[in-house]
Amino acid sequence: MAASPFSSIRSTPKISAPAALVVPRRRSSVDLRSASANPLRVQIGGAAARTSRIRARIAASATPVMEEAAAGKESGSRVSTVVNVDLGNRSYPIYIGSSLLDEPDLLQRHVHGKRVLVVTNTTIAPLYLEKVTEALTHGNSNISVESVILPDGEKYKNMETLMKVFDKAVESRLDRRCTFVALGGGVIGDMCGFAAAAFLRGVNFIQIPTTLMAQVDSSVGGKTGINHPLGKNLIGAFYQPQCVLVDTDTLNTLPDRELASGIAEVVKYGLIRDAAFFEWQEKNMQALLARDPSALAYAIKRSCENKAEVVSLDEKESGLRATLNLGHTFGHAIETGVGYGQWLHGEAVAAGMVMAVDMSRRLGWIDDTIMNRVLNILQHAKLPIVPPETMTVEKFKNTMAVDKKVADGLLRLILLKGPLGSCVFTGDYDRKALDETLHAFCKN
Amino acid sequence: MAASPFSSIRSTPKISAPAALVVPRRRSSVDLRSASANPLRVQIGGAAARTSRIRARIAASATPVMEEAAAGKESGSRVSTVVNVDLGNRSYPIYIGSSLLDEPDLLQRHVHGKRVLVVTNTTIAPLYLEKVTEALTHGNSNISVESVILPDGEKYKNMETLMKVFDKAVESRLDRRCTFVALGGGVIGDMCGFAAAAFLRGVNFIQIPTTLMAQVDSSVGGKTGINHPLGKNLIGAFYQPQCVLVDTDTLNTLPDRELASGIAEVVKYGLIRDAAFFEWQEKNMQALLARDPSALAYAIKRSCENKAEVVSLDEKESGLRATLNLGHTFGHAIETGVGYGQWLHGEAVAAGMVMAVDMSRRLGWIDDTIMNRVLNILQHAKLPIVPPETMTVEKFKNTMAVDKKVADGLLRLILLKGPLGSCVFTGDYDRKALDETLHAFCKN
Ligand SMILES: NC(=O)c1ccc[n+]([C@@H]2O[C@H](COP(=O)([O-])OP(=O)(O)OC[C@H]3O[C@@H](n4cnc5c(N)ncnc54)[C@H](O)[C@@H]3O)[C@@H](O)[C@H]2O)c1
Ligand SMILES: NC(=O)c1ccc[n+]([C@@H]2O[C@H](COP(=O)([O-])OP(=O)(O)OC[C@H]3O[C@@H](n4cnc5c(N)ncnc54)[C@H](O)[C@@H]3O)[C@@H](O)[C@H]2O)c1
Ligand SMILES: [Zn+2]
Ligand SMILES: [Zn+2]
Repeated sequence: MAASPFSSIRSTPKISAPAALVVPRRRSSVDLRSASANPLRVQIGGAAARTSRIRARIAASATPVMEEAAAGKESGSRVSTVVNVDLGNRSYPIYIGSSLLDEPDLLQRHVHGKRVLVVTNTTIAPLYLEKVTEALTHGNSNISVESVILPDGEKYKNMETLMKVFDKAVESRLDRRCTFVALGGGVIGDMCGFAAAAFLRGVNFIQIPTTLMAQVDSSVGGKTGINHPLGKNLIGAFYQPQCVLVDTDTLNTLPDRELASGIAEVVKYGLIRDAAFFEWQEKNMQALLARDPSALAYAIKRSCENKAEVVSLDEKESGLRATLNLGHTFGHAIETGVGYGQWLHGEAVAAGMVMAVDMSRRLGWIDDTIMNRVLNILQHAKLPIVPPETMTVEKFKNTMAVDKKVADGLLRLILLKGPLGSCVFTGDYDRKALDETLHAFCKN
Repeated sequence: MAASPFSSIRSTPKISAPAALVVPRRRSSVDLRSASANPLRVQIGGAAARTSRIRARIAASATPVMEEAAAGKESGSRVSTVVNVDLGNRSYPIYIGSSLLDEPDLLQRHVHGKRVLVVTNTTIAPLYLEKVTEALTHGNSNISVESVILPDGEKYKNMETLMKVFDKAVESRLDRRCTFVALGGGVIGDMCGFAAAAFLRGVNFIQIPTTLMAQVDSSVGGKTGINHPLGKNLIGAFYQPQCVLVDTDTLNTLPDRELASGIAEVVKYGLIRDAAFFEWQEKNMQALLARDPSALAYAIKRSCENKAEVVSLDEKESGLRATLNLGHTFGHAIETGVGYGQWLHGEAVAAGMVMAVDMSRRLGWIDDTIMNRVLNILQHAKLPIVPPETMTVEKFKNTMAVDKKVADGLLRLILLKGPLGSCVFTGDYDRKALDETLHAFCKN
């Protein structure tokens, strides 16, 4: 037997966790009981699935592609799984594992045509561009790779930077049978995806996400786009990639704060629809923070499965998909309040989730113990559990009033309700609870 | 009985043409016999339809919506038909007729939400913006209309102008339940359509085309986009409108050259797939040039039906849709050669079609009489039948070498083959014929 991928952390008493391939494969159950009765309320419970009423097939499933590290390789922790995102003829696989960039075939089977444009940024290019180019061309001298290296940062996620991608594509005379590859975090993925959607009205597109945030969230689901000076992600397209390749090794160079930011979204999936996953995280947070490849691969796999299931059921966000925004309405107010870039997105979401859980507790919708567990897990991940001191009740209210989820003057929120792993998206709650939460978390 | 819509032109001996509602409803037959045998060759013939092999349903059909001019109205020429573009859940109607902008219900039934953004330009706004605003709001005080007036011209069909549309939409705080309305020619339609596709990843969209070119071609089929400094229409989306409203009265203010430019595309539909329509045009060209509302409505209807059928069968242009480019490869070389904006698009297409027909004749694929009929009809429409003198064989070859339809070094062309109304899209032709055609039409 190869060394257990978890051997390094088995000594920590808290962790009894099985590795990715050992964990029995499971599917989250989805319950839309109340959806038809009240369009404002979508209940996603841990109860028995009643998916027969749901047209879209749920098919986010995990299948091992490599049973064990190839003989002769050092790493005993190489684990790879495939999550399939089921969207009819736009379905695609997410490959997850260590050293996947050393498997040229995984990428090459999804390249259309002979010409590839890699879109990346000044931080990531020196780290991974050569490796990715090698993976794309290895054993295949037919393929030619161009690249465009954009400036790094959310503030460059705009039309001007997007034009640099088009300029490069046009100057290189790329035709419809080319492939765009996004190599980077969510900013690069969103921009490259939108460029691929719009260049010649749509070309082939592959995602290689290199932040945990991108691996567990932004690379899955097909939302692409750029910011407008007056608002985030206002211009874009729903556009699905041909595949997503997650090489967990890329996380080794990721700053700690960026890693933690991604973990906030991982915690979110557990809270809104996957109690077993939340429990797994409680036991394995240390392994995640230590970047144990198997723990990361498992967390990414379960996150992608959860997101893929939700997206399959509601690609264009008519209701269910909104539940992926637990903590995001409060979080968005924090991001706006402190100025974008001060707090990372996942940090704001972490504090926002605490506020949403607090409100759910005040409404009497969840057991008190859930609050403690949320606080514990986020603190363990070194994520903030309260908004910054500069946030006032007023600031929260102002931003929340213009949230996309306001309909006919009513702010709909994602709140926990029922046992761990169940939530609702609803505008039907006591306003007093919201007020109390805001006052509890703000000095004034 | 109301006065015949054709009473004013019945005296002209050439015209035996029935009005739109009198012409027996017909469907073009589509034959993809050779498509599977040779992917480079798509045959569209006038022969019996063998549509059973074709997945997409052909459903471009004409249904009268207003049998007669409403009592008490002056105009006896009001004719309205609906062409349905069948694209599954993205299907939509094209309303065609005189005074349709006086029928608020036609537009209002397709408005989603309460907020509308009309996109138009400095030439069209003074002519029709008030009328359209009235049509959108008449009897419906709930609806609020904003507008953005762009500079007029193909040279403004770019990212900078597109941003003005987004700026207006964002500043007006439009949300997902808004409707964009394109009021203008193909330039406005293409830009507004792309803006609608990308704003908040897609909002509702209505086309009110005001040039014949836009009414018979660009408003149908869902191609939207803008130009890149280095090439036309390189950035865009496939995005279908909620409806297209063609009020033939808007053509009364259109310059003669622009009208003729649109007629070139009308002639094209006859040549590639609809012999009966071509024959109708031969008899009714005078009525079209005189802007007879019924003749225009019929020509627009048949054109939209033909385009809609092709688009239903091949939305993303895998083969069949390419046949809509008869004359366009030669025409594009002319537009590039003389500089964009010197020749109108339809003018270049007219000369290009003559060249394609000449080449088909040299290949022995069509009867000699077809050439004469094409020359006659285009001359009657005052369209050019030869390229400008400045065009050389060299210039043609250079532009044609980089055409989108070049695959593996082989230039595929749309050529006529068989009886009137049949064409092929093929790279399988004698190179000598192409050379002879180029030399016949160029001084050097
Ligand atoms: N499309 C969606 O569904 C979706 C979902 C969530 C977030 N997003 C978007 O994603 C963006 C945030 O993504 P993000 O958190 O990945 O931010 P990011 O893309 O800005 O990456 C964070 C930082 O890490 C650097 N980096 C990336 N990979 C690295 C690596 N392997 N090693 C070292 N440094 C690395 C980046 O250069 C950057 O400086 C936002 O624009 C947000 O709107 C989109
Ligand atoms: N999307 C497609 O499938 C498709 C197909 C063909 C052409 N196109 C695009 O369409 C554009 C050409 O369209 P076009 O020929 O309509 O040109 P256009 O939009 O520039 O209009 C021609 C001129 O007529 C003016 N005009 C429009 N309506 C008028 C009216 N009723 N009265 C007086 N003036 C009026 C315009 O302001 C403009 O000056 C090109 O950009 C081309 O790429 C797109
Ligand atoms: Zn998020
Ligand atoms: Zn054309």
